[in-house]
Amino acid sequence: MKIKVGINGYGTIGKRVAYAVTKQDDMELIGVTKTKPDFEAYRAKELGIPVYAASEEFLPRFEKAGFEVEGTLNDLLEKVDIIVDATPGGMGEKNKQLYEKAGVKAIFQGGEKAEVAQVSFVAQANYEAALGKDYVRVVSCNTTGLVRTLNAIKDYVDYVYAVMIRRAADPNDIKRGPINAIKPSVTIPSHHGPDVQTVIPINIETSAFVVPTTIMHVHSIMVELKKPLTREDVIDIFENTTRVLLFEKEKGFESTAQLIEFARDLHREWNNLYEIAVWKESINVKGNRLFYIQAVHQESDVIPENIDAIRAMFEIAEKWESIKKTNKSLGILK
Amino acid sequence: MKIKVGINGYGTIGKRVAYAVTKQDDMELIGVTKTKPDFEAYRAKELGIPVYAASEEFLPRFEKAGFEVEGTLNDLLEKVDIIVDATPGGMGEKNKQLYEKAGVKAIFQGGEKAEVAQVSFVAQANYEAALGKDYVRVVSCNTTGLVRTLNAIKDYVDYVYAVMIRRAADPNDIKRGPINAIKPSVTIPSHHGPDVQTVIPINIETSAFVVPTTIMHVHSIMVELKKPLTREDVIDIFENTTRVLLFEKEKGFESTAQLIEFARDLHREWNNLYEIAVWKESINVKGNRLFYIQAVHQESDVIPENIDAIRAMFEIAEKWESIKKTNKSLGILK
Amino acid sequence: MKIKVGINGYGTIGKRVAYAVTKQDDMELIGVTKTKPDFEAYRAKELGIPVYAASEEFLPRFEKAGFEVEGTLNDLLEKVDIIVDATPGGMGEKNKQLYEKAGVKAIFQGGEKAEVAQVSFVAQANYEAALGKDYVRVVSCNTTGLVRTLNAIKDYVDYVYAVMIRRAADPNDIKRGPINAIKPSVTIPSHHGPDVQTVIPINIETSAFVVPTTIMHVHSIMVELKKPLTREDVIDIFENTTRVLLFEKEKGFESTAQLIEFARDLHREWNNLYEIAVWKESINVKGNRLFYIQAVHQESDVIPENIDAIRAMFEIAEKWESIKKTNKSLGILK
Amino acid sequence: MKIKVGINGYGTIGKRVAYAVTKQDDMELIGVTKTKPDFEAYRAKELGIPVYAASEEFLPRFEKAGFEVEGTLNDLLEKVDIIVDATPGGMGEKNKQLYEKAGVKAIFQGGEKAEVAQVSFVAQANYEAALGKDYVRVVSCNTTGLVRTLNAIKDYVDYVYAVMIRRAADPNDIKRGPINAIKPSVTIPSHHGPDVQTVIPINIETSAFVVPTTIMHVHSIMVELKKPLTREDVIDIFENTTRVLLFEKEKGFESTAQLIEFARDLHREWNNLYEIAVWKESINVKGNRLFYIQAVHQESDVIPENIDAIRAMFEIAEKWESIKKTNKSLGILK
Repeated sequence: MKIKVGINGYGTIGKRVAYAVTKQDDMELIGVTKTKPDFEAYRAKELGIPVYAASEEFLPRFEKAGFEVEGTLNDLLEKVDIIVDATPGGMGEKNKQLYEKAGVKAIFQGGEKAEVAQVSFVAQANYEAALGKDYVRVVSCNTTGLVRTLNAIKDYVDYVYAVMIRRAADPNDIKRGPINAIKPSVTIPSHHGPDVQTVIPINIETSAFVVPTTIMHVHSIMVELKKPLTREDVIDIFENTTRVLLFEKEKGFESTAQLIEFARDLHREWNNLYEIAVWKESINVKGNRLFYIQAVHQESDVIPENIDAIRAMFEIAEKWESIKKTNKSLGILK
Repeated sequence: MKIKVGINGYGTIGKRVAYAVTKQDDMELIGVTKTKPDFEAYRAKELGIPVYAASEEFLPRFEKAGFEVEGTLNDLLEKVDIIVDATPGGMGEKNKQLYEKAGVKAIFQGGEKAEVAQVSFVAQANYEAALGKDYVRVVSCNTTGLVRTLNAIKDYVDYVYAVMIRRAADPNDIKRGPINAIKPSVTIPSHHGPDVQTVIPINIETSAFVVPTTIMHVHSIMVELKKPLTREDVIDIFENTTRVLLFEKEKGFESTAQLIEFARDLHREWNNLYEIAVWKESINVKGNRLFYIQAVHQESDVIPENIDAIRAMFEIAEKWESIKKTNKSLGILK
Repeated sequence: MKIKVGINGYGTIGKRVAYAVTKQDDMELIGVTKTKPDFEAYRAKELGIPVYAASEEFLPRFEKAGFEVEGTLNDLLEKVDIIVDATPGGMGEKNKQLYEKAGVKAIFQGGEKAEVAQVSFVAQANYEAALGKDYVRVVSCNTTGLVRTLNAIKDYVDYVYAVMIRRAADPNDIKRGPINAIKPSVTIPSHHGPDVQTVIPINIETSAFVVPTTIMHVHSIMVELKKPLTREDVIDIFENTTRVLLFEKEKGFESTAQLIEFARDLHREWNNLYEIAVWKESINVKGNRLFYIQAVHQESDVIPENIDAIRAMFEIAEKWESIKKTNKSLGILK
Repeated sequence: MKIKVGINGYGTIGKRVAYAVTKQDDMELIGVTKTKPDFEAYRAKELGIPVYAASEEFLPRFEKAGFEVEGTLNDLLEKVDIIVDATPGGMGEKNKQLYEKAGVKAIFQGGEKAEVAQVSFVAQANYEAALGKDYVRVVSCNTTGLVRTLNAIKDYVDYVYAVMIRRAADPNDIKRGPINAIKPSVTIPSHHGPDVQTVIPINIETSAFVVPTTIMHVHSIMVELKKPLTREDVIDIFENTTRVLLFEKEKGFESTAQLIEFARDLHREWNNLYEIAVWKESINVKGNRLFYIQAVHQESDVIPENIDAIRAMFEIAEKWESIKKTNKSLGILK
């Protein structure tokens, strides 16, 4: 019997999770919600995905456009075992009561506070913690990126200082700026460090900056080691870490642009780069300090986590069984 | 017997033409050339595409990297019936003598002067002109875009004034600016008008501006009509024109960003939008003037033209047979 | 006796008008309003400019910051002969009743509908129309730019088609995008043509596009002539047109970036380029069509118009007397 | 007797140094060199600054344009006591022999290797080291920024890790990208740390990233303290450090855009922000780690250093006498 999955919010994250669900043999996509009949809604229909209004208030928009919906979120909730909340940050908390009322499990995204769920989740770090849970939060794209590489070396970590250079808006978000400025989060440490600690206990502090680009975030990471580790050790560890890939400037990966071009060359859907990209040349150990630079594809790195979270919450697969299954289904390279 | 195709230059255009060739049942991809062993070269190898050095001078680069090549361009030329020259603008002219010496047909891109070939080509406009020819030039992305829509209404056109707002660099080209300026081609009319006239005889003048974006060009077109035409007529004509699609702002297509998002939602390889995108709401007739706005995906709109040109040059298909075949193979919507 | 001027809204336009007023020997700056105690408010204080709260509702913000204000807009209105409304587009209409109640004359900016005022104004085109009026609207930066050059050749103009390539946000506005897209105003003709007609009767149609730059707008202008005019004639006319300057690509003016650099080299306050910049090489006549390209500094080209409008409304100077006075006071080159 | 100063290279840095020299009562600007007669050259002439060709090879360009030069660099060298080399990075080293041959002192910029000069210089850190020297290198904009704040707290510094988010191109440089990508210097630590050590002995490591903006660099600085220091101490120290200013987000300084707007509001020539801008809210101490964020105006922060270096090299002023003189002449706030 397949797990019946609904998606609340069919935007950047929601449409990717929906796609990923259709690639799983143990899950079934029951429907998605939209607030308006835009091209994404029409595309969902073309794909045969049942579309629901995110709430009654939006029904007139669909009627006006002659776009037939299957009902509203509440109707969808009656048909699913679990709902993946991919609504804008902060709304998940409000939606939670609807999910509780309907008695369905729910996954929230990183835009929500940790308190919204029983567990903050990154599959390779704490899959087991989500076993059987009703409410799980898949952490943000940046936090997921930090956890993937730091978890792999956590036994060596005494302290981490990570500087995040963030893309200002997603490729199809034309409302947000800046167009020509650098915008710091002036409070240091920023909130990203504590967010990592909701998944793994690690001593980390961060600062964050928004810059005028749309394609990827970049992290400059400095680790103070408590045990000796060589550059070669780290390369070896990352080469054996799932959902982390090493890229060489030597081969033309000079910026985030070539990383996205790599995903395009692979014909990845939406040029998704589910894996965290670490520049091989950037990995360096000086004294007790390890340095490396990684890039995060904000639109897609959390997608496999959503799929694994579903399996954990229904206890239908062991950690590595689920991760391998998800990786294979999405063409994740390792 | 399939036509043996080689590609000289495996970059933005070359890799897309190579992909398109592999989708044709009457063509065979023999090999591609590279000047250096970058990630695109490694990707070609992964795909089983024989890689050749663009010339002897580049061999050391490949040796140094331990990247085995099948030989050089001259070796490739011995094995093919036709070579698609996808080298940087202006180099095709220099390469032509090699192609002549090898006695292979050749297709050049829009970066070359019209004189390099016997015909300047846009399939739906002048397929027949390329029948049996040895040297054909597929015109630039912008010229192809102008020809596709203007050819459909050419019987009504007295005069065209088109303003081209051009993307400054391709997504994976990080060398070029500007970052925060608008750069006009100060000579008006610009060279784009005469380039259209190498394909269809039409009275057109153009001006061009470079702006800091990487994803698409946009054209603001004004046509002085010699015969009455209504807005509805034009919509009807464009709806029945191959490789032209109408998009509605109403459905969320507010900018070039959503057009690319549409191609990503279709899971098009490299988010190719082979079709010229016309904003339906922009089509308007006032008195004897027709206005419309279109967008051009500079990385991909010329790809189907390269495929059709091959068929025409070997006379293995009639115009519409080839266009339909190409469209079907690439998932072009109409 | 000097005219007592107040400024409602001390932002991009307001602070420049305030500065310009202080440069006039027949005007006196009585005060400006702010909605919050930001660095612009502190700067005004440093300059000895009385600062008022834009309305009572904002008083707490100033109190909280310990920033002493002179009162509110209503207090300012009691002390002035005229108020320059430099509030965000659309608010001027709401504010008008306050100005009427206070019995002060008012100048509105181009963000307001023409109906808000008795006259839409560009000094060199229709100064006389504003003589003695109580409510005048200084038209938008783009409309002002179009009127300045078109008015100079209006006797030759049969029809104008202008394409406007607009900066997406001002340099210090970091909220607005797009970061990497071109956004058309899909309705053609756009509203800019009719706005020109509120100042001069001319047959004009326009289209407009927003691009990711912050420094200047650019216009591509095509004029159908009803009387013969040569390239040299146009150069001669523009060289003799106030607030219009010719720039040569030959001398390094390749884009809007060098135009701003020119204003910086002049040590213009805020790098203001009050003059409309026309590329000399772009001026060209083919048959009965005249082409030229101009750039508009959206932050400053309307400033001299606000000063001249004040003089006209109080009938204290003839047209050219005022224009010359304003030009001299602001260092406008001609 | 005033010191006779020549400037080799009248671009972004050269024209600002030339302006600064004219503001000093103990220096005289003898002339500047240009490689072509662009608008900057014409501006110099308007200002009455003698213009020389950077070398004989460029004379034809000036003749062709009918731009009269005073001679070539060699002619200028005969008339000056010191030459400020503001040529593109790396050229200074080649020019040095000309300066030696002419027997004039020379100042080089940060684009040169430290070896080109006897001292690498930041006035407030090591003015005395330049006393009487013949060859001094004013370090780069980024290094100057790091030295200004770190020198003020150096007694407390055990280790510094600074991440530099760099503007990709200057405002009037339209050739360089990227337009939509983040480009890391993949080698960590980057070369910026050792460059700081050419001025002050401090244990520092850095990483650097290029982003698509033109106006300022931003540094995220983490300091490991060897002696206790509170947030209040640091604020107090920076408030008493010359050429360093504290800015509050609270007052609207949300990004680099508002910092430049502040300089524009001050009517600084070319919106120069000679001072290093530190966000007050970003200063924070956690345990033995101090964090702060600063922004650097790459076009102007090194200008006062060039002026002070001249005084030191001719031993005509003590350290603080020179710094105060320079600050006063340029309107540096403290």
